[in-house]
Amino acid sequence: MTKPYKKILITGAAGRLGSELRRGLVPLADHLVLADRLPCPDLQPHETGLIFDLADEAATIAATEGCDAIVHMGGAPLERPWNEVLDSNIRGSYHIYEGARKHGVKRVIYASSVHAIGYHGITDGIACDAPPRPDSLYGVSKCFVESLSSLYWDKFGIESACIRIFSSFPEPADRRMLWSWLSFEDCIRLVSACLTTPQLGHTITAGMSDNRVKPVDMTPTGYLGYQPQDSTEPFRAALEARTDPADPGDPATHRIGGWFVNLGHPDDEAPE
Amino acid sequence: MTKPYKKILITGAAGRLGSELRRGLVPLADHLVLADRLPCPDLQPHETGLIFDLADEAATIAATEGCDAIVHMGGAPLERPWNEVLDSNIRGSYHIYEGARKHGVKRVIYASSVHAIGYHGITDGIACDAPPRPDSLYGVSKCFVESLSSLYWDKFGIESACIRIFSSFPEPADRRMLWSWLSFEDCIRLVSACLTTPQLGHTITAGMSDNRVKPVDMTPTGYLGYQPQDSTEPFRAALEARTDPADPGDPATHRIGGWFVNLGHPDDEAPE
Amino acid sequence: MTKPYKKILITGAAGRLGSELRRGLVPLADHLVLADRLPCPDLQPHETGLIFDLADEAATIAATEGCDAIVHMGGAPLERPWNEVLDSNIRGSYHIYEGARKHGVKRVIYASSVHAIGYHGITDGIACDAPPRPDSLYGVSKCFVESLSSLYWDKFGIESACIRIFSSFPEPADRRMLWSWLSFEDCIRLVSACLTTPQLGHTITAGMSDNRVKPVDMTPTGYLGYQPQDSTEPFRAALEARTDPADPGDPATHRIGGWFVNLGHPDDEAPE
Amino acid sequence: MTKPYKKILITGAAGRLGSELRRGLVPLADHLVLADRLPCPDLQPHETGLIFDLADEAATIAATEGCDAIVHMGGAPLERPWNEVLDSNIRGSYHIYEGARKHGVKRVIYASSVHAIGYHGITDGIACDAPPRPDSLYGVSKCFVESLSSLYWDKFGIESACIRIFSSFPEPADRRMLWSWLSFEDCIRLVSACLTTPQLGHTITAGMSDNRVKPVDMTPTGYLGYQPQDSTEPFRAALEARTDPADPGDPATHRIGGWFVNLGHPDDEAPE
Amino acid sequence: MTKPYKKILITGAAGRLGSELRRGLVPLADHLVLADRLPCPDLQPHETGLIFDLADEAATIAATEGCDAIVHMGGAPLERPWNEVLDSNIRGSYHIYEGARKHGVKRVIYASSVHAIGYHGITDGIACDAPPRPDSLYGVSKCFVESLSSLYWDKFGIESACIRIFSSFPEPADRRMLWSWLSFEDCIRLVSACLTTPQLGHTITAGMSDNRVKPVDMTPTGYLGYQPQDSTEPFRAALEARTDPADPGDPATHRIGGWFVNLGHPDDEAPE
Amino acid sequence: MTKPYKKILITGAAGRLGSELRRGLVPLADHLVLADRLPCPDLQPHETGLIFDLADEAATIAATEGCDAIVHMGGAPLERPWNEVLDSNIRGSYHIYEGARKHGVKRVIYASSVHAIGYHGITDGIACDAPPRPDSLYGVSKCFVESLSSLYWDKFGIESACIRIFSSFPEPADRRMLWSWLSFEDCIRLVSACLTTPQLGHTITAGMSDNRVKPVDMTPTGYLGYQPQDSTEPFRAALEARTDPADPGDPATHRIGGWFVNLGHPDDEAPE
Repeated sequence: MTKPYKKILITGAAGRLGSELRRGLVPLADHLVLADRLPCPDLQPHETGLIFDLADEAATIAATEGCDAIVHMGGAPLERPWNEVLDSNIRGSYHIYEGARKHGVKRVIYASSVHAIGYHGITDGIACDAPPRPDSLYGVSKCFVESLSSLYWDKFGIESACIRIFSSFPEPADRRMLWSWLSFEDCIRLVSACLTTPQLGHTITAGMSDNRVKPVDMTPTGYLGYQPQDSTEPFRAALEARTDPADPGDPATHRIGGWFVNLGHPDDEAPE
Repeated sequence: MTKPYKKILITGAAGRLGSELRRGLVPLADHLVLADRLPCPDLQPHETGLIFDLADEAATIAATEGCDAIVHMGGAPLERPWNEVLDSNIRGSYHIYEGARKHGVKRVIYASSVHAIGYHGITDGIACDAPPRPDSLYGVSKCFVESLSSLYWDKFGIESACIRIFSSFPEPADRRMLWSWLSFEDCIRLVSACLTTPQLGHTITAGMSDNRVKPVDMTPTGYLGYQPQDSTEPFRAALEARTDPADPGDPATHRIGGWFVNLGHPDDEAPE
Repeated sequence: MTKPYKKILITGAAGRLGSELRRGLVPLADHLVLADRLPCPDLQPHETGLIFDLADEAATIAATEGCDAIVHMGGAPLERPWNEVLDSNIRGSYHIYEGARKHGVKRVIYASSVHAIGYHGITDGIACDAPPRPDSLYGVSKCFVESLSSLYWDKFGIESACIRIFSSFPEPADRRMLWSWLSFEDCIRLVSACLTTPQLGHTITAGMSDNRVKPVDMTPTGYLGYQPQDSTEPFRAALEARTDPADPGDPATHRIGGWFVNLGHPDDEAPE
Repeated sequence: MTKPYKKILITGAAGRLGSELRRGLVPLADHLVLADRLPCPDLQPHETGLIFDLADEAATIAATEGCDAIVHMGGAPLERPWNEVLDSNIRGSYHIYEGARKHGVKRVIYASSVHAIGYHGITDGIACDAPPRPDSLYGVSKCFVESLSSLYWDKFGIESACIRIFSSFPEPADRRMLWSWLSFEDCIRLVSACLTTPQLGHTITAGMSDNRVKPVDMTPTGYLGYQPQDSTEPFRAALEARTDPADPGDPATHRIGGWFVNLGHPDDEAPE
Repeated sequence: MTKPYKKILITGAAGRLGSELRRGLVPLADHLVLADRLPCPDLQPHETGLIFDLADEAATIAATEGCDAIVHMGGAPLERPWNEVLDSNIRGSYHIYEGARKHGVKRVIYASSVHAIGYHGITDGIACDAPPRPDSLYGVSKCFVESLSSLYWDKFGIESACIRIFSSFPEPADRRMLWSWLSFEDCIRLVSACLTTPQLGHTITAGMSDNRVKPVDMTPTGYLGYQPQDSTEPFRAALEARTDPADPGDPATHRIGGWFVNLGHPDDEAPE
Repeated sequence: MTKPYKKILITGAAGRLGSELRRGLVPLADHLVLADRLPCPDLQPHETGLIFDLADEAATIAATEGCDAIVHMGGAPLERPWNEVLDSNIRGSYHIYEGARKHGVKRVIYASSVHAIGYHGITDGIACDAPPRPDSLYGVSKCFVESLSSLYWDKFGIESACIRIFSSFPEPADRRMLWSWLSFEDCIRLVSACLTTPQLGHTITAGMSDNRVKPVDMTPTGYLGYQPQDSTEPFRAALEARTDPADPGDPATHRIGGWFVNLGHPDDEAPE
């Protein structure tokens, strides 16, 4: 069967999620372009490696040429000083969308984050596409790209999914991840669903596995056809045995964003 | 065990869905009255065949006598010239409801259609009972019957389900049906659920199998107890191998109604 | 100043509302075409009279030629036997929309009715564009046209307002009209607002004066710029003095549609 | 593994649900305090029995001392004369919350009831945390405790779940229970989920098994992590064989509260 | 003109609001029964005075005999120890509704309070009929009566309005009252609207004058026909000159209930 | 009377709105700091002028010192090339919020824009705080600040209003402004309301005068106490006489953002 894409650009391809998607998206594209600030090891014949910083406008735009989809996982993966957030997440993502516009790439899958909505309460029963309520500068940068994605669909016809990834790690690492965990396989399933659904438009959704606790309602994006297969239940007993229960009085327990809500301003702690 | 109904009238009984329901509703009724413009083949002892046109008021009303439920699948099954839509779907359905009123039939299951809401976008995340947004004169006629059903419940106490059937075929025949398909067995399950739920009132719901992609939220009619058992996943690989991907720029891809939204006016094309 | 329309067709022009609009729409059009089954008296130079039945497809379509807007007030104005509702309201209104489509008329203002939503409760706090819940065959026919209006906008680009007129009479005539009354001047204001608002699309709204009691929320169609100037308060004392209070146990008191909800089926009472 | 609680107080511990929870909550607490007006038989080493009436303020408050959670199942379990409802459900529950406040108990799980929302219609598609609409004085007392629970969270930081238990019996006993049944095991699962979810705040949810018919939407409290494992389907055939179908014209069929809506005032029937 | 009521019972008639309503309701009833624990001074020929405690079941029920409406303003008007709240607000109001049921009184207007929803935030933009979120035991008792009102309408057909009165005083006395004030004349207007609206059913609404700041949306009860005529603007300058601005960090500023949210438990402070 | 603020910083103080606010905010502050890239003419004793670019982090932060409120009107006022939007609107606004955080300024009023939601349809009936749907890079920058405002309230306790200003000009200049116009006096009223409302938190609202056409629902922020006094009606006749009607087929007519939706990408047109 013909693969749906000829060439997909993956940014952050040397990172945690990028490495998994490098493997997982093989069925969807003839060729993968692997972009990162660091070299991606062990390049295969169906892969091309590119090394550049997303803050480099020309290099980023050039990387999108000839691609028919972009899976944009690159950028700072957690709270960082403002200038870093600005360069890698705000400016860098703008360069990606500009590349898509200039080179006719029709679909972008973006790693947004739970931290775009981190101050919503876990008992609020929000939907996966709830309004912005960021918990960090990092989260604000994710909100920025979500609104950029909206613009590029309405004005330039470029389809995007902004996936508010909750916690994608090899396995759940703390009690919060019992509900926020997104397994790597489910992450691949969700990105693949976004790449292959007939109509994507401008979609905001959330990324979690089929965990027992469900803090957000996924119904509004049922049209994506994402069906998670993993769950944290097999990890629960061991994890609970080695960790303390959450403190219900701690904001990190009550808010969707977890410990990010307890962070101060990054520039207060991180001299540059 | 006593069957819940003594005699059910099935209209359109010689048609695609009618034939399946003829088989599938046997557990629910002692006797089936099979009505169509064409003869139903191979009548069994528990079946009576009736041949008439729904536009024939007297014949239609007469056919409802002695029945305790009506499964109304008859009428034009897709876009047709106005006069045909008017006669078979609008006038014909009115005759059915009048038959129910005059002969004390207490429950009507009606084959409404996705085309009653065909202009809603697939990414809009609508509910199964979304407001009317028809994509054709055919769809308008379905909206008409939905409002008629509302009236006959509020004023005359006749319970109805209007099932917005998406695509009920032997198997999914194009890429859109990967999310819109309703298997024949699931169709029987849904009609049966509507016939046996304790309280039906005036219900508007949608008819799809348990496909991976879920374009509408079925939660509002969870009280029906419909649990689809089939899915298009077993058909996906073969179907995708032999068909082209949808064009995201085509309204038929974006709208729930599919290619109906691209139809012109039927009277422009179909001389009578 | 140039008038916004060259020629407006008014149907039902000899009727109660049509006569008022004949007067009130003069500032909006160079010429008015006055259509009715009965002759309109005292035609003026800026007026043309047409006599035909809306059930006459050819005549109705012909009447729309050369018009740039239609104010469609014609048809049975209250509950009537089915065949009459069918001919004058369903078929007749279809002919109007077909005329608009065939002759390039870009905007239609339609006299829908409170009876399209008559079974909603007055204490339900519904919006002016609430889902259909008709209280009569007459109301069902209004729902039919509302869905037709939706189709003709989505598919053919014809803008329509469906105004759910509550009670438009010279003055409030019973206690229900203390909240449902639409003065003739406010009716003219509302139709004029629909004719002149920059974007109408497919709009469903309600027609009431600025009465003290407000049974529906008009906020969703604030974009029309309709600001009623009249109220029933000046009539209240006299009206209350000569009428009995409503009976809270009567469905006609509880439902938006008033006494229509207590009507039986029109064909039971009206032999044809 | 350490159990999450040291000592849980169960009220109504000799009753139907209390007895089941006495068994089912063993994994969650080192010690259980079993309170009832009647003695609990066969006390085990990990159990303490207390006999008192919830109307006894001092005894009730004393019973909460040293506990770190309360599972409050006590009080009149169905419609009773006003004074009894007042003493056992209103005053009794107030004493429980006061005990929690005075003795620093941080979490209360309360057996609210479907009868707090019994007048909502089964076809209304309500959510599990729908606004109050009680069907009995018993239901009103449940609404009282739900608002008390809200206050004690907002003002005193005591977390509570108010579980609107539908019908928790050994097995479904009538046709309504085909959709309202909560198996004992699922009841234990739900109470356990409420006791162990990281953040509970003030939660209102509903208690049903995974029955085919789903009259309320459980999505808003997905954060509890309650996943029912039982269903009434295995009981359906036998139950339907020995019972009559529901009468769709009976308010008990249409309303969530079932036959409670047909009860008169308890003081009219029950002299004290 | 005949007055709409023959005899209205006003409870709390010697209190602040009761005294005003004693004057303001004269146009609506031939006779007023003025009930309070204290004597009402200067009884007029159209008035009857009754002295009893609402906790006295027999006296309260007896007082309702022969009345065709009840304006129930009695009971503790602010936070009080539990036993007092229980007797005067919970038990007392139950006696009122029982009187209405036993003596066929068809309409009850109840002074609920902003404190039934006091923990909602002022920036939350809630509606006047928002779900319960009480800020005090007093508020919980108001929620209790609101659910009792719901029951007595659904089951016994007694219509009630529960008016969440914000701050009804001779004039605004602090900065919060600039938005929460209900003038006495507007209070009379609102109670009168509830007494004369054709259909009241079970209504929950809010009571404020037409102040510039509008913390709740009154649209859902527009059917009452309440149009406030007063505003705090004439008082603003003087009040702001003599009071300090609110502290935005104080919960009393953020929550609808004002300083009630800062109250502790009444039994901690008020030994009895 | 003491003024509510000691010192307010106005950015963009030499611009169109800044100049008006310089005049209009005098009653609210003892001293005004007027910041702009250009000098503000005719400084008065109660004014201090500061000249700097918002992209200058140190200068911007320094300007906030000693202020107790900021009215942030500065930055590019319409679509500009990306680097300019980035520097003046994104980086510049971040500097303002950092200044507030570092110098303890407790309230910020920000000139967001209709262009943050410009792709919403005028007939959609959206609320003033609708989710982001920007129509330009300029609009995206406004969305960025709105999410920044959310963060600085949730995390740092700084209150902000983001006013989506529609069209604030001396008088309505085209047909769209008949509904989008915000008079200068109403702009002053709205900013003043935001500065003086007791609780602001993180508020998103819209800025329009009391025009006849109301494209957004202002109810959700009724707690601000903004009551516009001006309207475009006095300008209507003259404006309609000299301008052509809007074309309903033009996206600029259908979308809230007007002609911004027809703009291409600014970098395509504006070489730097």
